[in-house]
Amino acid sequence: MQDSATAGCSPRELPNCLREPLLRARSVLDTALAGWRAPGLAPGLAHQLEGGKALRPALSIWWGTRLGVRSEHCESWGLAVELLHNAFLIHDDIEDGDRWRRGRPTLWVESGIPVALNVADHLLAEAYRTVASIDADPKVIVALVTDFARTHRTTVEGQALDLLYRADPEFTLDLYERIIRQKTGRYLALTWIGPARLAGWSEEAVSLLWRIGDELGPAFQVRDDILDLSSGKGRGGEIGCDIREGKPSILVAHALTQSALDDTRRQRLLDVLARPREETGVPDVAWVISLFEELGSVAFAEQEALHRTEAARELFPQLPGDDPRRVTEFEEVAAFLVDRKV
Amino acid sequence: MQDSATAGCSPRELPNCLREPLLRARSVLDTALAGWRAPGLAPGLAHQLEGGKALRPALSIWWGTRLGVRSEHCESWGLAVELLHNAFLIHDDIEDGDRWRRGRPTLWVESGIPVALNVADHLLAEAYRTVASIDADPKVIVALVTDFARTHRTTVEGQALDLLYRADPEFTLDLYERIIRQKTGRYLALTWIGPARLAGWSEEAVSLLWRIGDELGPAFQVRDDILDLSSGKGRGGEIGCDIREGKPSILVAHALTQSALDDTRRQRLLDVLARPREETGVPDVAWVISLFEELGSVAFAEQEALHRTEAARELFPQLPGDDPRRVTEFEEVAAFLVDRKV
Repeated sequence: MQDSATAGCSPRELPNCLREPLLRARSVLDTALAGWRAPGLAPGLAHQLEGGKALRPALSIWWGTRLGVRSEHCESWGLAVELLHNAFLIHDDIEDGDRWRRGRPTLWVESGIPVALNVADHLLAEAYRTVASIDADPKVIVALVTDFARTHRTTVEGQALDLLYRADPEFTLDLYERIIRQKTGRYLALTWIGPARLAGWSEEAVSLLWRIGDELGPAFQVRDDILDLSSGKGRGGEIGCDIREGKPSILVAHALTQSALDDTRRQRLLDVLARPREETGVPDVAWVISLFEELGSVAFAEQEALHRTEAARELFPQLPGDDPRRVTEFEEVAAFLVDRKV
Repeated sequence: MQDSATAGCSPRELPNCLREPLLRARSVLDTALAGWRAPGLAPGLAHQLEGGKALRPALSIWWGTRLGVRSEHCESWGLAVELLHNAFLIHDDIEDGDRWRRGRPTLWVESGIPVALNVADHLLAEAYRTVASIDADPKVIVALVTDFARTHRTTVEGQALDLLYRADPEFTLDLYERIIRQKTGRYLALTWIGPARLAGWSEEAVSLLWRIGDELGPAFQVRDDILDLSSGKGRGGEIGCDIREGKPSILVAHALTQSALDDTRRQRLLDVLARPREETGVPDVAWVISLFEELGSVAFAEQEALHRTEAARELFPQLPGDDPRRVTEFEEVAAFLVDRKV
């Protein structure tokens, strides 16, 4: 449920196929925003939604165009996914005590927790209403509401596990796998599921899309874990936010399972992870980062991001249809999502 | 979004028509709970759902039986409404800083805000998934998802207004009307909308049900405002919670607009409402209650609850069908909801 790709991408890094969809996605989001004028909610909705670049709806719009789905249907689906995503971001920021996102104060810092919760509820209600408002075969809409709600639930289950394993000495790579498959895997693929069902794809083809997401979503998350060591991810320039929050990242999972990690350093790592974020200093963070380097955890994570992207790429050609652009563009989009430097 | 009817009702006060539906509703809720085993979520889900008496699903089950709708369809619909209701209660308790509900600590007090937010998200996701899982005409299901999401949104808009007018000197009865129509009006009627649509009712008949809710829901809320002055509403025996929280109740709206309220007492009332709840003492609360009595605000509220219930009763006979039991039972249910003493 990270948002760094949307916060950090500059136009020249974008694949060509996403340029026009991104503009349309931003316009769809702005139109929705302009319609929400409820007192006590409108300023918070604007604060939350104005900062993002609307990458998720752009992914839906691009994919829908390739599948020949009506543009307003894909725009609605993409909008719904973006609203769900932002509701999650609001909740995550409260849960993690994060004060910065996309280079501005988080909503709970700006407006207080009560307003933030109401804004997130409004986003969720509008997300589901938007899915139900798509004027297509009702059978397909019921399937889409189900996909949407299952992903909503799976992501929360992943987030609950993520909280459970903060600074946990028993944390492993298997547990990491489970968390990110739930928290990020389903979630990215959801942007493409709407257009696929609206194009009349079979259950088998839809399953294949989910499997691609099961690889790409975690690859995206692994990259996010790595980026935390070197960039501020739009969070006020702070490096090592995940370390300060004790997050169960791939780096922690790898480091904790290395025999080269002696008991003293193991305990020091766990202590830093367990300490409240405001008590974690820059030297603590620097020490953990150098430990990750020394134990090979960063190199391991880089390899993992690569392997998962490769696994996804091997699946692309099995998708239905014979449009070669689709595969080429999927490659470009995957590279953009996973190989980003910020 | 109060829960006092479920917390306070004892079996002998229940209308006969709700007895068996309440048992079934509780069993439906327990079955759902038993299926949720996600680590980090299951204990919180149990804490939240075990305390309630499941009044809302019982209302759906009773009404569905009268309309001849398949029992598992009404059970699913009622379950979904109950899950939405509990997600709201979790968020409300955080927003209001409430520490007690149904005679036990609120979820955020028991497990912390992060777990409470994840549990509420899980409930919301399952609520929508449950609506979509009803095995009926997909057109009806899409309409029901829309009703559900609109009610979700309207209730949040009401809650946002409620927060906005805490201890506000400009608060009026018109604003009160607007808040409770949004926050409570749609919400109670939702329990009956599912069975009505599943029974194939026309849009016109469904609108009539919403109008009945527009009267009964606020009547239920007015009664809740009055009960705050004399009973603990399951909140650890504390009287005057609404006063401590500065809530824009019907009593505050009435009192602030009385010419008998001189400037000194007006200022003292606003001061008590604006003060943080932990700094509000028993003498403050007692003074406000006696002020409400003296200004006739309590008597006014009693009359309002009565008028609104009457307005709803006048609409019952216009509902479709010719089952006389239906009207009699609706009268009993309305009386139970609005004339309760605890």
